[in-house]
Amino acid sequence: MRINRKRLEESMETLGRVGETPRGGLTRLALSDEDRRGRDLLVGWLEGAGLQVSVDRMGNIFGLRPGAEALPPVFMGSHADSVPTGGKYDGQLGVLCALEAIRALNDHGVQTRHPVGMIIFTNEEGARFQPAMVGSGVMAGKISLEDAYNARDRDGKRLGEELERIGYLGPEPCIPRPIRAYLELHIEQGPILEEEGVPVGVVEGIVAISWSRLTLHGVQDHAGPTPMRMRRDALVAAAEVVTGVREIPRRIQGNIVATAGRLDVMPNIANAIPGQVAMSIDLRDPDEHNITRALGMVDRLVKQAARRERVTYELEHYWRVPRTVFDAEVVGAVERAATSLGCSHRRILSGAGHDAQYMAAIAPAGMIFVPSRAGRSHCEEEFTPMDDVEPGANTLLLAAAQLAGAA
Amino acid sequence: MRINRKRLEESMETLGRVGETPRGGLTRLALSDEDRRGRDLLVGWLEGAGLQVSVDRMGNIFGLRPGAEALPPVFMGSHADSVPTGGKYDGQLGVLCALEAIRALNDHGVQTRHPVGMIIFTNEEGARFQPAMVGSGVMAGKISLEDAYNARDRDGKRLGEELERIGYLGPEPCIPRPIRAYLELHIEQGPILEEEGVPVGVVEGIVAISWSRLTLHGVQDHAGPTPMRMRRDALVAAAEVVTGVREIPRRIQGNIVATAGRLDVMPNIANAIPGQVAMSIDLRDPDEHNITRALGMVDRLVKQAARRERVTYELEHYWRVPRTVFDAEVVGAVERAATSLGCSHRRILSGAGHDAQYMAAIAPAGMIFVPSRAGRSHCEEEFTPMDDVEPGANTLLLAAAQLAGAA
Repeated sequence: MRINRKRLEESMETLGRVGETPRGGLTRLALSDEDRRGRDLLVGWLEGAGLQVSVDRMGNIFGLRPGAEALPPVFMGSHADSVPTGGKYDGQLGVLCALEAIRALNDHGVQTRHPVGMIIFTNEEGARFQPAMVGSGVMAGKISLEDAYNARDRDGKRLGEELERIGYLGPEPCIPRPIRAYLELHIEQGPILEEEGVPVGVVEGIVAISWSRLTLHGVQDHAGPTPMRMRRDALVAAAEVVTGVREIPRRIQGNIVATAGRLDVMPNIANAIPGQVAMSIDLRDPDEHNITRALGMVDRLVKQAARRERVTYELEHYWRVPRTVFDAEVVGAVERAATSLGCSHRRILSGAGHDAQYMAAIAPAGMIFVPSRAGRSHCEEEFTPMDDVEPGANTLLLAAAQLAGAA
Repeated sequence: MRINRKRLEESMETLGRVGETPRGGLTRLALSDEDRRGRDLLVGWLEGAGLQVSVDRMGNIFGLRPGAEALPPVFMGSHADSVPTGGKYDGQLGVLCALEAIRALNDHGVQTRHPVGMIIFTNEEGARFQPAMVGSGVMAGKISLEDAYNARDRDGKRLGEELERIGYLGPEPCIPRPIRAYLELHIEQGPILEEEGVPVGVVEGIVAISWSRLTLHGVQDHAGPTPMRMRRDALVAAAEVVTGVREIPRRIQGNIVATAGRLDVMPNIANAIPGQVAMSIDLRDPDEHNITRALGMVDRLVKQAARRERVTYELEHYWRVPRTVFDAEVVGAVERAATSLGCSHRRILSGAGHDAQYMAAIAPAGMIFVPSRAGRSHCEEEFTPMDDVEPGANTLLLAAAQLAGAA
């Protein structure tokens, strides 16, 4: 039993046109009109594959293929939202490989003991609404439904209202349910599989992640007549923080990564001294202890930069996800599936957060990685050739079938 | 002959409500709906003062009070646009002191040999459309009408179309005309007058100004799985430039000021490595030579920062205004007016650009400064008490009357 490569490729192309950028990337922000159109298209396809479709209060979409017995289902899934000027593989590939696996089960008339289903999670990226992975986070009981609804985008729009506006505020409660296993295929978004020429990554777990937000308050003033001695420039302090954040991985030897990805200046004009800067700090490491050390460094760094420029600040470490260890049985099933396909594979750790992270708290979970060209992701150049997609998609199909007890 | 302090204060309050911010500042961006409402109010007041009103092709508004003879007029003026979350004194005070001076001439039935008029210039701030001071720049022949019309705001809207939209694309050609003298009252926007307790600044000239724009192109990628060794982070390079720009005044001893006021990150989300940063660099010094030295430092600094982070860039020094020296006769008239009022005054150099800068190229020009509380400007806290406004406004009135040959 194998997936239909051509059909998968066509689905990728069709869905990829919803929110396509002029340079061939994707902008399909969570709960935008593009997200709605992508969801509508997917729901049609799920129904076309004979799945029983439902939507929960977080807008997570479920499609279920009945099993021979009334047992907890095996779910596959991922997300369909993107970052701004992102790529066509992050999320979308996992969703469409799940659909393709179900279509393949249909093609081959495979009956499974457990039902097999798929989930399309809401706002995985956290690009429009923070934090990321709220759909699975609420489902796993890690984020309250109320907090999720109250998240606001930059224009002040609430997530709950946007969910309603696009017609995906469903009736099903968004709570843990009995699940046999959760499997997610995703692009690696890093360079390892490509560099080693290995098409399938058997994901053992996900690094710990921490997000902080920093607001620096300087004194907005005219850039001309204000002498240098009087200045309290929020951007000068922020620049010191950006540089200091970059230094953290050099000080903590190992695998930690540290990023200042977002930075907003007020009033942001050439002839005014910046009065305020808001920025983000993202830290990730397989080792929890290093995150804690790095956060201490951030605290000291910000204090120092603020003191030097005589500005005030608020620093909030507002989101932290501990290291995830995936379920041994599920990881084993993925590994056996790859082996049975005769394709080379390796164990790997994910540097990016995924819905599988929250799902691991309420179900045996695992992931499959496929290579990312040049390790690039969250950009328009994101790409995985079909020759590299196919082994992963078949691994997903076989692992799901095995976990569901295929006849 | 003196101005009517109460009437001036009321005019400030009324106009200050058009575009008022919740915290008592002002957002009245050039050619916005607020700018239109401010202009409409002013035109009504100009007509109410018996002035002959006309508008030129740049939207500059003229009001003229006839003289006894058909001679070149004495113009007073300033601008009515503001920066975002700016203050109620920058520009607006100069416009309303000019109007109040004319109202005072009317009150006292003063006849002048030369006509006396006022000008309200378009887009002095350069906050919405770059460069700054386009209204006077086109009038002085320093900026082409076509370039001015083609300036675009961040939403891609053209200045020419916005001028038409708000109904201020006038029929008069925007070209030099015979002018007896141009006088502009403005807040100092710096700390000197307040620190020295002097209410009137007799402005001798304006520092040289240079604006540069820098775009850094890194590699947008996922903030999680992208190892530090692979990163080409446009914001890390930009932070080094911000820090380096701040160092320039320490290296060039003297009065130079250097500011990175605007900085835009792409895609600007927590979990993507910044792929692009666009930023501004503003340099000002009374000495042209120091600007040239500083621009050389900027060139080297950007090259170094880009090389270190392996990013590419475009750096453009796109606007430069040489040091302005005001007309000796006009400066003398301002000084004599202040002396005759018995108020203390001092000669001063402007650190900010003003329309008087371009007007100085086509007419004998001069300026009057009044103190800024704590030296603050381009912010909501901008303030000058009426006790400090009154001596400046009377200086403007008496200097204009003298230059116009009051009977």
